[in-house]
Amino acid sequence: MRQMKLIGFMQAQNCSNYPASWRHRLSQPNFGSREYYEGIGRTLEAGKFHLAFFDDRLAIPDKYADDFEDTVRYGIRAAKLDPVSCALVMGLATERLGIGVTYSTTYYEPFHVARVFATLDLLLNGRMAWNVVTSLNDSEAANFGATKHLGHDLRYDRADEFMEVVLGHWDSWEEDAIVFDRESGVFADPAKVHRLDHKGKFFTSRGPFTVPRSPQGRPIIIQAGQSGRGKTFATRWGELMFVIYPNLTVAKRQYAEIKQSLTEQGKDISIAPAIYPIVAETQGEAEDRFAEIDGLAKPIDTLALLSEVLNFDFATKPMDEPFSSEELAAISGLQAVRDRVVLLSGKPSPTVRDFVQFSGRATLREFPNFVGSAKQVADGLEEWFSAGACDGFVVAATQVPGTYDDFVRLVVPELQRRGLFRRDYEGNTLRENLGLPKLSPAHRAN
Amino acid sequence: MRQMKLIGFMQAQNCSNYPASWRHRLSQPNFGSREYYEGIGRTLEAGKFHLAFFDDRLAIPDKYADDFEDTVRYGIRAAKLDPVSCALVMGLATERLGIGVTYSTTYYEPFHVARVFATLDLLLNGRMAWNVVTSLNDSEAANFGATKHLGHDLRYDRADEFMEVVLGHWDSWEEDAIVFDRESGVFADPAKVHRLDHKGKFFTSRGPFTVPRSPQGRPIIIQAGQSGRGKTFATRWGELMFVIYPNLTVAKRQYAEIKQSLTEQGKDISIAPAIYPIVAETQGEAEDRFAEIDGLAKPIDTLALLSEVLNFDFATKPMDEPFSSEELAAISGLQAVRDRVVLLSGKPSPTVRDFVQFSGRATLREFPNFVGSAKQVADGLEEWFSAGACDGFVVAATQVPGTYDDFVRLVVPELQRRGLFRRDYEGNTLRENLGLPKLSPAHRAN
Repeated sequence: MRQMKLIGFMQAQNCSNYPASWRHRLSQPNFGSREYYEGIGRTLEAGKFHLAFFDDRLAIPDKYADDFEDTVRYGIRAAKLDPVSCALVMGLATERLGIGVTYSTTYYEPFHVARVFATLDLLLNGRMAWNVVTSLNDSEAANFGATKHLGHDLRYDRADEFMEVVLGHWDSWEEDAIVFDRESGVFADPAKVHRLDHKGKFFTSRGPFTVPRSPQGRPIIIQAGQSGRGKTFATRWGELMFVIYPNLTVAKRQYAEIKQSLTEQGKDISIAPAIYPIVAETQGEAEDRFAEIDGLAKPIDTLALLSEVLNFDFATKPMDEPFSSEELAAISGLQAVRDRVVLLSGKPSPTVRDFVQFSGRATLREFPNFVGSAKQVADGLEEWFSAGACDGFVVAATQVPGTYDDFVRLVVPELQRRGLFRRDYEGNTLRENLGLPKLSPAHRAN
Repeated sequence: MRQMKLIGFMQAQNCSNYPASWRHRLSQPNFGSREYYEGIGRTLEAGKFHLAFFDDRLAIPDKYADDFEDTVRYGIRAAKLDPVSCALVMGLATERLGIGVTYSTTYYEPFHVARVFATLDLLLNGRMAWNVVTSLNDSEAANFGATKHLGHDLRYDRADEFMEVVLGHWDSWEEDAIVFDRESGVFADPAKVHRLDHKGKFFTSRGPFTVPRSPQGRPIIIQAGQSGRGKTFATRWGELMFVIYPNLTVAKRQYAEIKQSLTEQGKDISIAPAIYPIVAETQGEAEDRFAEIDGLAKPIDTLALLSEVLNFDFATKPMDEPFSSEELAAISGLQAVRDRVVLLSGKPSPTVRDFVQFSGRATLREFPNFVGSAKQVADGLEEWFSAGACDGFVVAATQVPGTYDDFVRLVVPELQRRGLFRRDYEGNTLRENLGLPKLSPAHRAN
C-alpha cells in the first residue's frame, strides 16, 4: 500500500512559518538554544517523520518601506540563525530522522556547500538532505555585498552549474576508496579518488574533494521550484519536491502536471505540499484554537513578508492600484507567489489588496488548513493523498513546539491505523527511509 | 598564582597535525563519525582544557609535483571535513570546554562567517572561538574558482576589513534588545538593533544582522600570525595567540617581543605554542613510544606539507640548490615557516634540504617535544611557562585519541598538584574561563 511522506517544516529563528506563532501564549522563547531543536527533533522522530527540513533566508525582511523597525518590533522573522548548525543539533539528538537544510546557490561557493553537506552526511550516518534555493531579494544581496540580486533566470543558470559542481565533487571519492591499512601505510587508493576539474561559465573548481563518500552515497536533493524555470530546475535535480498548493482543486491539477512532466523524463519524485494542521481532542477545541492563533496575525506581517518574497516594496503602491503587466513581469522574487495571486484572484492585473488576500502570505491561509479532531484531520489528509494531489505533507507549525506535539500524539497514530503511514523506519539512511535507490558514483575517467 | 592555558589542537580529518599519526597501530579510523569528536571532547573537558581548536585548509596537499596520488595513498592530510560541523559535535558533547574553529577570510563572505559563529556561540552558550586565517595556497584557490591565491599582504588587508564587518555585525544587537513579550506582541526593541552599513574596499554589508547577542557577547578571536604583517594583524584583533616556537631559546626571545609590542598597545594576550607531549608511566616507556611513532613518518609527508604551506612546489628544485633571495621573497605561503628555516639553519639562502630539516614539517620535530614520565613532562612545561616563554600550550597529538588520554590522565594531575593548572572551570562561558572581560557592544549610533 502506498504510504505518505511526512516532513516537518523548521525555522532556525524566532517563529515558525507563521510569523505570529511566537506571540502565542504557549510558544517557546528559547530559539537560540540546543534544547529547542533537540526537543522538536525527538518529537518528529517519535512520529516516524521522514525529515525535518530547515528553511533559510540571508536577511531579515526589511524591503517593505526599506525599514526593519516593524520587523524587529513585531518579530516578523526577525532572527535567522545559521540553519546548518541548528539542523546538526537536531540530527545529533535523533537517530533515524532525516535532516534537510536550505542553502543558497547564490552567495556561497559550490566547493563550500559540497564540503559542509558531505560532512554532515558523514556525521549523521547518511541522513542529510539539501534544499537547493536561489536567493531572491535585495536585502540578502545587501548583506553579501552585491547591490542587486541576480535576475530570476540567470539565478537558475548559475544554480544549474552549481549543482554540476556539487554533485561532481560528491561523486569524486569512490565508495571503496578508503583502505586505512595502518601496517602498510596505505590510507586510500588514489585511483579511486578523482579531480573534478570543472571549468564553467560561473564556476571553476578542481578538487580532489576533501570528504569521502557517506553511507547513503550523497545527500538527498530537495527542490521547491514552482515557477516555469524553477520547475525545470526542480525536475532535473530534485529527489523530493516541496510545493505550496492553495487548495485541493489546484493541487490536483498542478500535481498531475508535474507528475506528467516527470514521467516524460522517466522519473518519479515524491511531492509534498505545505499544510497547517490544527488538531485537538474535539472539533470544537480545534476550532477555538484556530481562532486564537489566527487572531495573532498583524497586517504588517503580510506586507513585510510579501515585500520580502516578491522583492517588491509594497509600501510604494496604493492598496487598490492594479499592477501593470510590466510591473508584474518585473517581479524578481518567488514567481510562484505572483502566479498564485493571478490564478486565485482571476485577475491578470491584481492590486496590492489582491496580493494581500490571495497570497495568504504570513497568515494561516498561506497553506491549506486541516482543523479538527484526529479523525477529521486524518480524513482531510487522506482525501488529498488519495485524490492524487500529493505524496505526503510538509507540516508547518502554527506554534512551536505545540503543533508537532499535537500532530504526533493525535494524527500520526490515526494515519498509522489506516495504513496510510508507516509504523517504523525502514532503514538507517534517509535514502532508505524515503525508498530511494542507493547511488553509485557516476565519476568520470580520471 | 599565574596558571597555564591548555588548548587541544584538533583536525577534522584522517590524521592529527602529525600526518603519520593515522599509521599508528592504536589510531582510530572513525574520523568521519560523531563518536570520534565526542570522545576527544569529553577527554579534554575531563582535563579542564580551555579549548579544543580545529585547524582547517580548503584543499588536500597536492602542490608537490602537482599531484595528489601520494597524498591520498599515504594519507597525508588526505581528508578535510568541514571543521565547524565537527566542532559543534564536540561542543554538544561537552558543557564547559571552549570550541574554536579555523575559518578563512579569503573564500567566504563576512556576513556568512559572522552568522555561523554567532549561531554556534548561542547554541553552545557562549563557548565559541574563531581562529582567523587567510588562505594561502593555489590548491585552495583552484577549488574556489580563483586561479591564484591573493598575495600575502593583500590577504591581510582583506582580512582586516573582514574583521571590521564581522565584529560590526556581532555588535549590532544590543544585549537587552530582545523583549519577547507575547502579550503585547513586542519581540525586540528596534532602537537596540543596528544596521552596520559597511562599505569598504573589499566588502559591502548592510545588516541588520540576523543573530542576537550570545551569553559571552561574541566569540573569542584566535590569531596565529607570526610573520611581520601577520603579527600586526594578530596583535590588533587577537584575544588568544597560537604560535610555533622551535625551542626554548627562540621562544623566550619571540615571546618577549610580542609581549613588548602588546604592552605598547596597552594590551595583554595569552600566547600558547604548539607542542608534542609523549608521556607514559616511565621515561623508558615514553622513549620507546616516541621512537615507534617517529618511525612512522615518510619523507614524502614533509615534501607534500612543505609545498602546501609555502605554496611552492619543492619537486621543481634539486635538494641541495640554495633558494635565491628573489625566490625566498616570492614565497607566498606561511612566511613564518620560511623565516624559521632561515633562522635555524643560519643561512640566508637555505636549500630544499635545509627546508626539510629545519622546518621539521610533518615530523615530530615541527613542535617542541616533551617526552617522559608525568613528572618529566610537567618539569618541561613548567620550565617554559616559568621562563617567560609562553602562557600555556597547544597540545598536538602524535596519535588520536591516545595523546589526549595520556596527557589528561598523567600530566594534568601533576600540573594541578603544582598549582600550575586549575582544578575546575571558573565559569560557564569561554570568556569567563579564559579570564577575559565580558564585552559590551561598541555599536554605532543608528
